[in-house]
Amino acid sequence: MDTERSPLARSFPEMPPVAGVTLRIARARYKDWDRCDLTFAELTEGTTIAGVFTRNVCCSSEVELGRENVKRGTARALIVNAGNSNAFTGYRGREAVEQIMDQVSDHLACDRKEVFVSSTGVIGVPLPKDKVRAGVEAVLTTEPCNWEDAALTIGTTDTFTKGAHASAMIGDKRVELCGIIKGSGMIAPDMATMLGYIFTDAAIDSALLQDMLNEATKDSFNAITVDSDTSTSDTVLTFATGKAGHAPLRSYDAPGADAFAAALRDVCQQLAHLVVRDGEGARKFIEVRVSGAISDESAHRIGLAIANSPLVKTAIAGEDANWGRVVMAVGKAGEPADRDRLSIGFGGHWAAKNGQPLADYDEAPVAEHLRGQDVLLEVDIGLGDGRATVWTCDLTHGYIAINADYRS
Amino acid sequence: MDTERSPLARSFPEMPPVAGVTLRIARARYKDWDRCDLTFAELTEGTTIAGVFTRNVCCSSEVELGRENVKRGTARALIVNAGNSNAFTGYRGREAVEQIMDQVSDHLACDRKEVFVSSTGVIGVPLPKDKVRAGVEAVLTTEPCNWEDAALTIGTTDTFTKGAHASAMIGDKRVELCGIIKGSGMIAPDMATMLGYIFTDAAIDSALLQDMLNEATKDSFNAITVDSDTSTSDTVLTFATGKAGHAPLRSYDAPGADAFAAALRDVCQQLAHLVVRDGEGARKFIEVRVSGAISDESAHRIGLAIANSPLVKTAIAGEDANWGRVVMAVGKAGEPADRDRLSIGFGGHWAAKNGQPLADYDEAPVAEHLRGQDVLLEVDIGLGDGRATVWTCDLTHGYIAINADYRS
Repeated sequence: MDTERSPLARSFPEMPPVAGVTLRIARARYKDWDRCDLTFAELTEGTTIAGVFTRNVCCSSEVELGRENVKRGTARALIVNAGNSNAFTGYRGREAVEQIMDQVSDHLACDRKEVFVSSTGVIGVPLPKDKVRAGVEAVLTTEPCNWEDAALTIGTTDTFTKGAHASAMIGDKRVELCGIIKGSGMIAPDMATMLGYIFTDAAIDSALLQDMLNEATKDSFNAITVDSDTSTSDTVLTFATGKAGHAPLRSYDAPGADAFAAALRDVCQQLAHLVVRDGEGARKFIEVRVSGAISDESAHRIGLAIANSPLVKTAIAGEDANWGRVVMAVGKAGEPADRDRLSIGFGGHWAAKNGQPLADYDEAPVAEHLRGQDVLLEVDIGLGDGRATVWTCDLTHGYIAINADYRS
Repeated sequence: MDTERSPLARSFPEMPPVAGVTLRIARARYKDWDRCDLTFAELTEGTTIAGVFTRNVCCSSEVELGRENVKRGTARALIVNAGNSNAFTGYRGREAVEQIMDQVSDHLACDRKEVFVSSTGVIGVPLPKDKVRAGVEAVLTTEPCNWEDAALTIGTTDTFTKGAHASAMIGDKRVELCGIIKGSGMIAPDMATMLGYIFTDAAIDSALLQDMLNEATKDSFNAITVDSDTSTSDTVLTFATGKAGHAPLRSYDAPGADAFAAALRDVCQQLAHLVVRDGEGARKFIEVRVSGAISDESAHRIGLAIANSPLVKTAIAGEDANWGRVVMAVGKAGEPADRDRLSIGFGGHWAAKNGQPLADYDEAPVAEHLRGQDVLLEVDIGLGDGRATVWTCDLTHGYIAINADYRS
């Protein structure tokens, strides 16, 4: 597909190596292309893992196996196939994944359940076992590469390469968190066609890491939406190699645990925003801030109803401060709301307060705000203290062009 | 707005008069236009009424009052304002509606609660009381008009005028059911920016009529979706004048009750399909048939998840038999489904069975089917006997053009 680089793209950041992680890429030629499409991250012994996965019930074998094996808490390898999602392929798809697990665990002399596999791309075609075997064979022994190479290799329809970095102090040790992600369309609250991986040299108990990842996911991957659709393969994995040399974190009470959790949330949010910035056809990055709901959860659901509304998204594409459509979206969220307490604003300027248009509403600064690339939409429900922020992009001709012309 | 007539349009049908119903139209000039925009249906004494309304919690005063007054069971008048929805206008909007109720009930010497009002158009601007007063004054005494004139006058962004007719035998009396409807965008399961009115000369108890309308709504207005958005004003009212001269129907056991219920369902379904056929930017009318779900309700929710999926709708716009996206949509519905029992077909040809692509899948007849205007998408969940059918349209550049350029 020839798609131009998103106008909302960010350049790939400087990212330091993470001790205990070695990255390699190779060509498996899952499609008729000459790019690298197979990524291998080798993880040192003792690496702990946490993961969150799509809630789509028609998920891939990769997701089924990953969800099961992540509970064991340890990882030695990650393999990512790009160009073929291997989803909806029955037992043949599952055999291909198990073949990869066997091949890699033989090479590393580890348990096969410590090998995690993701695949992204076309649905319904089993991963071809011969290409898989040759590709894995090649990637196991090739020269290591850097973050940007790996980020590029896991990508499919992405128009730019996505990475994020943060660090935290645990005791007197500085730990690094480096994340890469792919995804553009089919992104909904439950994470769609999105594969994200975060690597850190921190030492952290897998149960605690899982808790922290769950928390971070709420305000990042589960707070973004491009088109409300959810893929069958979404996965975010976090690997902690323990090489930083501090005493392992085992609870939130441990010194440095808060700092690490904050850094993890930061990386997750950066990565989630990058996915929205590559939303198919996106021309504007939209932050929807909801306050005054009866609870944070209610605010979150109202935010997603707004962010998923095609009428709101097209209005913003048209740079129209159409707060009537926002009212409609609030009303359909199925959450407590009172028309006569609702306030709506754009870019810090209220357009309607307490259920009515502002008498002295000045459209000029709002119109100027909407002409920009970053749009802030604020909604106050006027009922309680519940707050949430979600992110989305506008809905444009580009989305239709990409998705109506896509050929699998 | 200059929008071309939908390629899926139907011409307005022959519709007989309904005894006890007199239609009139006038110019209130709610917008800067020279068309009729105020419709008045005068109903004979003894007319019973049933109604269904939007579930959007930010509904208009018209909906609040209508929902309350319909419980009384009798009606003498319907007033429909086009060009201004009067929604999100606080007490001033409510006062305008009450003014109409007073003015019309004075003229007819009836209870003001027997006057039903609907408004459609821009949100956030109260109906101007002076225009309302002059318009109502004019419409009360003007010459009667026909169904097509009334259907045209209730319309706003519609690209064609919509009506439907059915008849039924109750004893030896033939009763007529004539319906008109407006609506194109913002149409979702709970009926959005959709105003529909069905008039019959049958004599029927209002509680029974309400039961029948609720049932008919399930398989018609609540089984269609254009863009998943729900308006603040949606209303479907049914008026029964009792002029046909048969003994009033008071229960489903009464002779002719089944025939009447079937005719009502027929008219509702015809009207609902016309709204989808005028979906903003629609180029294809899509029927989604779900079978094998664990219940009819589950099948209905799966059907709507498919029909609301932007990725499915754009695939069909692109005439692409992309069953992978259908799998995704089934999986995200939140209903019981098993990837390995799922079957998907287009136009009577299976593309995937029991979770895998058909080995001998012939794309040619499917491709030909998808090139047509009417698309049938069949999904068998393989778990039970639950069935449902829902209808939608494709998602095209036309939708974006209409909604990103719309100016309220």
